[in-house]
Amino acid sequence: MSTKSFSLEEINQVIKGIIVGATSQKITAPQQLETATENEISFIGNKKYERLWQDSNACVAIVNEDIAIAPGENRAFIKVKNADLALAQVLELFAGTPPLFHQNIHPTAVIDASAVIGENAEIGANVYIGPKAVIGKNARIYPNVTILDESTIGDRTVIWSGSVVRERCHIGTDCIIHPNATIGADGFGFRPCPERGLAKIPQIGNVIIGNWVEIGANTCVDRGKFSSTIIGDGCKIDNLVQIGHNSVLGKYCIMAGNSGLAGSVTLGNGVIIGGSASIKDHTTIGDGATVGAGSGVTGDIPAGKVMLGYPAVEARDALKQWAILKRLVRESGEKKA
Amino acid sequence: MSTKSFSLEEINQVIKGIIVGATSQKITAPQQLETATENEISFIGNKKYERLWQDSNACVAIVNEDIAIAPGENRAFIKVKNADLALAQVLELFAGTPPLFHQNIHPTAVIDASAVIGENAEIGANVYIGPKAVIGKNARIYPNVTILDESTIGDRTVIWSGSVVRERCHIGTDCIIHPNATIGADGFGFRPCPERGLAKIPQIGNVIIGNWVEIGANTCVDRGKFSSTIIGDGCKIDNLVQIGHNSVLGKYCIMAGNSGLAGSVTLGNGVIIGGSASIKDHTTIGDGATVGAGSGVTGDIPAGKVMLGYPAVEARDALKQWAILKRLVRESGEKKA
Amino acid sequence: MSTKSFSLEEINQVIKGIIVGATSQKITAPQQLETATENEISFIGNKKYERLWQDSNACVAIVNEDIAIAPGENRAFIKVKNADLALAQVLELFAGTPPLFHQNIHPTAVIDASAVIGENAEIGANVYIGPKAVIGKNARIYPNVTILDESTIGDRTVIWSGSVVRERCHIGTDCIIHPNATIGADGFGFRPCPERGLAKIPQIGNVIIGNWVEIGANTCVDRGKFSSTIIGDGCKIDNLVQIGHNSVLGKYCIMAGNSGLAGSVTLGNGVIIGGSASIKDHTTIGDGATVGAGSGVTGDIPAGKVMLGYPAVEARDALKQWAILKRLVRESGEKKA
Repeated sequence: MSTKSFSLEEINQVIKGIIVGATSQKITAPQQLETATENEISFIGNKKYERLWQDSNACVAIVNEDIAIAPGENRAFIKVKNADLALAQVLELFAGTPPLFHQNIHPTAVIDASAVIGENAEIGANVYIGPKAVIGKNARIYPNVTILDESTIGDRTVIWSGSVVRERCHIGTDCIIHPNATIGADGFGFRPCPERGLAKIPQIGNVIIGNWVEIGANTCVDRGKFSSTIIGDGCKIDNLVQIGHNSVLGKYCIMAGNSGLAGSVTLGNGVIIGGSASIKDHTTIGDGATVGAGSGVTGDIPAGKVMLGYPAVEARDALKQWAILKRLVRESGEKKA
Repeated sequence: MSTKSFSLEEINQVIKGIIVGATSQKITAPQQLETATENEISFIGNKKYERLWQDSNACVAIVNEDIAIAPGENRAFIKVKNADLALAQVLELFAGTPPLFHQNIHPTAVIDASAVIGENAEIGANVYIGPKAVIGKNARIYPNVTILDESTIGDRTVIWSGSVVRERCHIGTDCIIHPNATIGADGFGFRPCPERGLAKIPQIGNVIIGNWVEIGANTCVDRGKFSSTIIGDGCKIDNLVQIGHNSVLGKYCIMAGNSGLAGSVTLGNGVIIGGSASIKDHTTIGDGATVGAGSGVTGDIPAGKVMLGYPAVEARDALKQWAILKRLVRESGEKKA
Repeated sequence: MSTKSFSLEEINQVIKGIIVGATSQKITAPQQLETATENEISFIGNKKYERLWQDSNACVAIVNEDIAIAPGENRAFIKVKNADLALAQVLELFAGTPPLFHQNIHPTAVIDASAVIGENAEIGANVYIGPKAVIGKNARIYPNVTILDESTIGDRTVIWSGSVVRERCHIGTDCIIHPNATIGADGFGFRPCPERGLAKIPQIGNVIIGNWVEIGANTCVDRGKFSSTIIGDGCKIDNLVQIGHNSVLGKYCIMAGNSGLAGSVTLGNGVIIGGSASIKDHTTIGDGATVGAGSGVTGDIPAGKVMLGYPAVEARDALKQWAILKRLVRESGEKKA
């Protein structure tokens, strides 16, 4: 990935742990214990992976304080208070440079005369920015992005190629919108209509996204029918997620890939939605609740509950349902035998 | 959302109901009863929401004829035959203007010399329109759309940014293709092949979309292996939906977010597919049938049936299965106790 | 679809079978038996469809050697060893031309001075190709594609419009990337963080895609946290599929629409994942295993196993579970009666 290399000591200048053992190896990349070569650095955050150190070729491991391993010959480890944080710091160290903008605004970008572009914002080739749109300071808008009229993008926010932000939507500061995401498409609302079966209900609201939010690749956040679809500060939304119109997410919610909220769903703070789970419209999910992968939620969930299954029930009951089904299959086999 | 405002009487000129009570408030936006401020107008389409009127701050409500509320001081309501229709009309009234095209064809659009562009069609920045493509009158093609060779787009159809219409596909009149949708990608067909495991079966058909159709953001409609994948008039397809090759949808079908049809599925007229549901290939679903959210359909469904569950069974049987599982869990708890 | 036509003999020059019967019809298109007109050619690969020949209007059928039908008046059939292969060859014969590039590199394409473009590669309108990217010989990059810094695209690979390949990703030869696919977006990784709830873990790896791979429309393959997300030679990935960071797919795997792999999933060779199925993170699935549509896999699967259900169990046990649930519903009805 990278042509950088660091000594054990150089790495420890960043993560500020305690070195045990020593190594003369130049460290060229982070890697998992199982696949690391002798020039690579690895991580042990959990005691159950301790045993992998001995057979690993990694010359260095960053470990939590409770991990008990021996350094070995020309190998070392670094004890830290928080291996997760240290891992993030080491990844930063080895990270390649982000894609290059030769100049702040590429000459092929089409920027309406009434749009406002913040200081040091970078805008790539073939980007379109519509009338009265506002791009924050130090924002990065990659090639082939479309931002329509009167939308605003906060300072330092990054919008990757292929994404579309429709008119009058607002994205906060320090957000990342991954490639081919769609922000502000019409909500899905129709009314019966004698002439044509179904007639469109105008969707005149918008989308408001807080600060520190990530929206995954090819994910869709629909605009409100009226008022706004709202994504709170610090939410992390994975790829291919559907967020229906007028849904409101609190702070720090996580939605994993292929999951979906039908319209007017309300999530509290810190809600976790597993991959491929789907939530019925007009449902309210309390602070800190968790919905397991693949679940289908059909009713409100109180704060802190862990729900699982299709339809979703409390996780311990879902596990019991599954155990009972397995037992019934086993018994039916025995009966025949 | 909007800087417009209307008096009670101005709104009633559009929806033509019967005013009960009076208000001097300027009405600035539509809003839900629970969150409305005193300058906002709300809606009551169902008797169960009647009770919310008293505590709402909305100055006006549009209500169906069977709703029994009292106007109150400086508040009014408007009785109408069809609150859904009146809501749509009021939303239209408050709607912002659509994104602006300064001129009919943006100078950065790349339009092949052999393409035909209809009268008053608007074509945005960085759009590509290939050889022999035909764009209808008053169509709106937003920035960064790609329409490949010989495809045709009907009059008044809107194609939002990032969408791709591959070669030789046909979209009717008055359609809306939401951002980043893909129309006419190859169907998913392979044959075993000794040298490379799997060899591609050419997908030489196309996609034909009727009139008044909506295709959701990041939704995919694959082209036929031979002949066509067909979406009938008035179908409404939500975001992130997969429609496999050679599927045929009748009129006025609804497919909710994250749902999918494998190849060669046939839907009659008025079929409703819930969110995240998936339908096996070569399945036929009759007119007016409904598939519940999250269901997995593995066989044909007669007209009018309501199916639910994974695998899908008649909805009343799915509900019974779920009740039985809950009872078995309860009983197993009692047995242990 | 096509304005081509061929005689029975011209078609047999390509598929080299044995003609039984004769027809003077000009053959203008391939079609299914049920919907074919008298100028169309059809296919019978399986004895159960034999009976459809008599009522079909098709003038010619291509059939496997074990199919027993009579030619009839002015109709014929062609016996072949491999009807699948013959079908592919006939589809090729009737295929329309791919979208036209008037010149190798469209003048509106933005190609960095340090990028390397292979001989006869075709690059469409409004494409962006970043610094040090390498495009192989005879590759076709359709309009509005974005390929970021240092990524490489193999010889003869086709990238359809709207797709995004982020920096430092590598795609092999003879691949097809369908429209609006996203290759190399950040993996979904966060760590708890006191100030902002969740902090991003840098995703410094990349994506490596082998040869003969297809990536479906609007499908996402995330880059590794460190090292690479790997898709082996000959894999065929359908539309709207999520492949999480650091997943590794062997050769010739198939993933159907709307399915997903959470992070660090390992698939052996020839694994088949059904539509809408989802696989838990850090799961290993052995060579030749199959996961049925809609399944939720929560643990490792040995080679060759067929798994089904949510949560997934061996397919025969899933079928038994479903049969038992149906029986319990039936019995509960009888008890009440």
